[in-house]
Amino acid sequence: MGQGDYQILHEADLRAYLAGLPDLKGLLGGEPAAWAITEVGDGNLNLVFIVKGARGGIAVKQALPYVRLVGESWPLPLSRAHYEYLALMRQAQLAPGLVPAVLHHNVALALIVMELLEPHIIMRKGLVAATRYPRFVDDITTFMARTLFFTSDLALSAAEKKEAIAAFAGNHALCKITEDLIFTDPYRIAEQNRWTAPYLDGLAASLREDLELHVAVSRLKLKFMASPEALIHGDLHTGSIMVTNSQTRVIDPEFAFYGPMGFDVGAVLANLLMAYFASAGHERAPGERAAFEAWVLETVEQVWTEFARKFLDLWRAGAAGDAYPPSLFPGEKGAARLEAERQAYMQRLFTDAVGFAAAKIIRRIFGLAHNIDFELIEDAKKRAISEARAVRLARVMMVEPGAFPVITDVTAAARNLRDWVPELSG
Amino acid sequence: MGQGDYQILHEADLRAYLAGLPDLKGLLGGEPAAWAITEVGDGNLNLVFIVKGARGGIAVKQALPYVRLVGESWPLPLSRAHYEYLALMRQAQLAPGLVPAVLHHNVALALIVMELLEPHIIMRKGLVAATRYPRFVDDITTFMARTLFFTSDLALSAAEKKEAIAAFAGNHALCKITEDLIFTDPYRIAEQNRWTAPYLDGLAASLREDLELHVAVSRLKLKFMASPEALIHGDLHTGSIMVTNSQTRVIDPEFAFYGPMGFDVGAVLANLLMAYFASAGHERAPGERAAFEAWVLETVEQVWTEFARKFLDLWRAGAAGDAYPPSLFPGEKGAARLEAERQAYMQRLFTDAVGFAAAKIIRRIFGLAHNIDFELIEDAKKRAISEARAVRLARVMMVEPGAFPVITDVTAAARNLRDWVPELSG
Repeated sequence: MGQGDYQILHEADLRAYLAGLPDLKGLLGGEPAAWAITEVGDGNLNLVFIVKGARGGIAVKQALPYVRLVGESWPLPLSRAHYEYLALMRQAQLAPGLVPAVLHHNVALALIVMELLEPHIIMRKGLVAATRYPRFVDDITTFMARTLFFTSDLALSAAEKKEAIAAFAGNHALCKITEDLIFTDPYRIAEQNRWTAPYLDGLAASLREDLELHVAVSRLKLKFMASPEALIHGDLHTGSIMVTNSQTRVIDPEFAFYGPMGFDVGAVLANLLMAYFASAGHERAPGERAAFEAWVLETVEQVWTEFARKFLDLWRAGAAGDAYPPSLFPGEKGAARLEAERQAYMQRLFTDAVGFAAAKIIRRIFGLAHNIDFELIEDAKKRAISEARAVRLARVMMVEPGAFPVITDVTAAARNLRDWVPELSG
Repeated sequence: MGQGDYQILHEADLRAYLAGLPDLKGLLGGEPAAWAITEVGDGNLNLVFIVKGARGGIAVKQALPYVRLVGESWPLPLSRAHYEYLALMRQAQLAPGLVPAVLHHNVALALIVMELLEPHIIMRKGLVAATRYPRFVDDITTFMARTLFFTSDLALSAAEKKEAIAAFAGNHALCKITEDLIFTDPYRIAEQNRWTAPYLDGLAASLREDLELHVAVSRLKLKFMASPEALIHGDLHTGSIMVTNSQTRVIDPEFAFYGPMGFDVGAVLANLLMAYFASAGHERAPGERAAFEAWVLETVEQVWTEFARKFLDLWRAGAAGDAYPPSLFPGEKGAARLEAERQAYMQRLFTDAVGFAAAKIIRRIFGLAHNIDFELIEDAKKRAISEARAVRLARVMMVEPGAFPVITDVTAAARNLRDWVPELSG
């Protein structure tokens, strides 16, 4: 097939296509007919194949012209594969070793071939199994600090920044998914919403009538739409992170665009907090996951503190961007005043992250796309209890983010809700 | 000359060019050889010709590949004429009758032919002469409310907004002028700075050491660079507004891009405030301009209140944009809560406008580009006194914009400074 033709790749098409690419053929090794090809996509949008040959393996991701989770009734542009490719290349530059290496890219096919991550697993699965990941904090905070800082006004000239914003502006169909599914639908009647019924029926109804929450989520939505602070991953949950005991890789940046940094940071915090609240639902004996849960909250704290430390260090080490020009802060007094402003900047970013984290929690409990942290709690009532605890925290994080001036305020609030017994419906 | 060739148009070239365009030739009337062509550009960047024939007249604006005020040593892309054209067309759609009609456009020549505005004069000249303009408030607030509202997230889908941001992203060389000359240079040693020496030497030095001011202007700069709220004019001072007693036209949107709305609103407020403070320097007898000065402050108040009223009315009448979806604010209670949030939104916008106004004042007194409000005060000491009063207000507006919750706080502060006697240097 030529570069100009899109077609959905079935196993045989893919085998023929890869056989025609000498580098990949060599990497896989052996006869193409003997390659093992498995479609493994468990995400919501795309086809993902694992291909293994005599010598090695690769992962192949192809965008479909619709949302896989929903079907052809919900079309979605193939161009998202282009933006994913752009983001992967930029992230690889900025955070080497923390994203999968791209081996091949075909724009027309909306196809990206990447190194096979093995024996990495999706982090969320590990968290459900109460696995602790000792590398995670250091790796994810390096990823976030470097990708966000170096694409921000602190590191880029205003001209470079505007060109970069424009380069990702076309990815608006993916942004729209976030705008609708995270910032709008969970707060109103929407066909695609679902929740743990009947237990959360009352809570779902109260969220739909909670006007303070609606104002807060609308402000977050506006910030998401109109604050191109940096190149954000845009979907940085624990299902977009693959881990082993010693490695971390961030995958799937197809939602990437220039948006608010707090959205990425908040996504990581939110998904850890959900793992924490879900944990009670997974325990077979009281307290058996206590060490894991303590690790999760410690990780929440460290994700923020290490991210902030690394981001500030990059800024202090020499910011070449047009924002906060060093020439306006000369001498010792200037340096001290700029440092105070850096702290204020990080405080504003933290407040954003707290708000966005709340939005990410609520959408996973009342919106279209749920996560296995909660979904794998088989007992629906137990699941509802875990979810209600998470929602109770999220509601106050969103409406009063300023009530959490430091990250330990968030973890303390989470710990206090660990055994809180919500009133359920039904 | 072909569409592909740029050349600076001299009078003879322009005559030949226009003679080759039947519509314009007809509009001008008579023999091309008899057309009166005068170069009148008194702005900082471009060539501007007035062409008059037996029947009618036109204005012709051509971008030069450098900054006219400085010369060939400061190159500036011709593409600004393209962005000016885009902005003029959009503004004409949104605010009919408030911008000059475009009659012809040549991308390669960086040329725009517009209706001749006659007998309009540059508003700033009228203000120096203490002329009051009864149409001004209504027209400028209609212009700002409609151009800003309809290009914002309140009126556009997120997709339309992102495409529009991208369409203007290439105008970054013009943005950079603002970033440097307004938000950076006046606060540090810069070759191009000038001020009324020696009287303001001390004040200039104190501004360069005022770290609270440097933090404040850096926050405004970051907001200017990274808050694409709406299509802003980008240079909306009283030299970009042409007036008669009964008409108002906004010209010269070559700085247009997606930026913070408060920058345009602040520009209008700042230039009126400068006209107010300059007025004392123009009086030949005490109090002779009192009625004019009262009108200016009343106009400052009405510019904000009428702008806010019209912007809110547009929002209430039906916002089709993706921000603040009406479905999240159902019923009477929802409507009331949304209305309260609209007021809060306008309050944030007002605070932005106060800060940006301050930046626009300070740059006209210590930066490269000054204005005739002050410059035409021949007595340098008198001029310095007027300027120092304006700077005293601007400093507190920038550092503590929250100290001005309503526009009458700004006008009251200005009035209190009308006869304040500053300490001058020299």
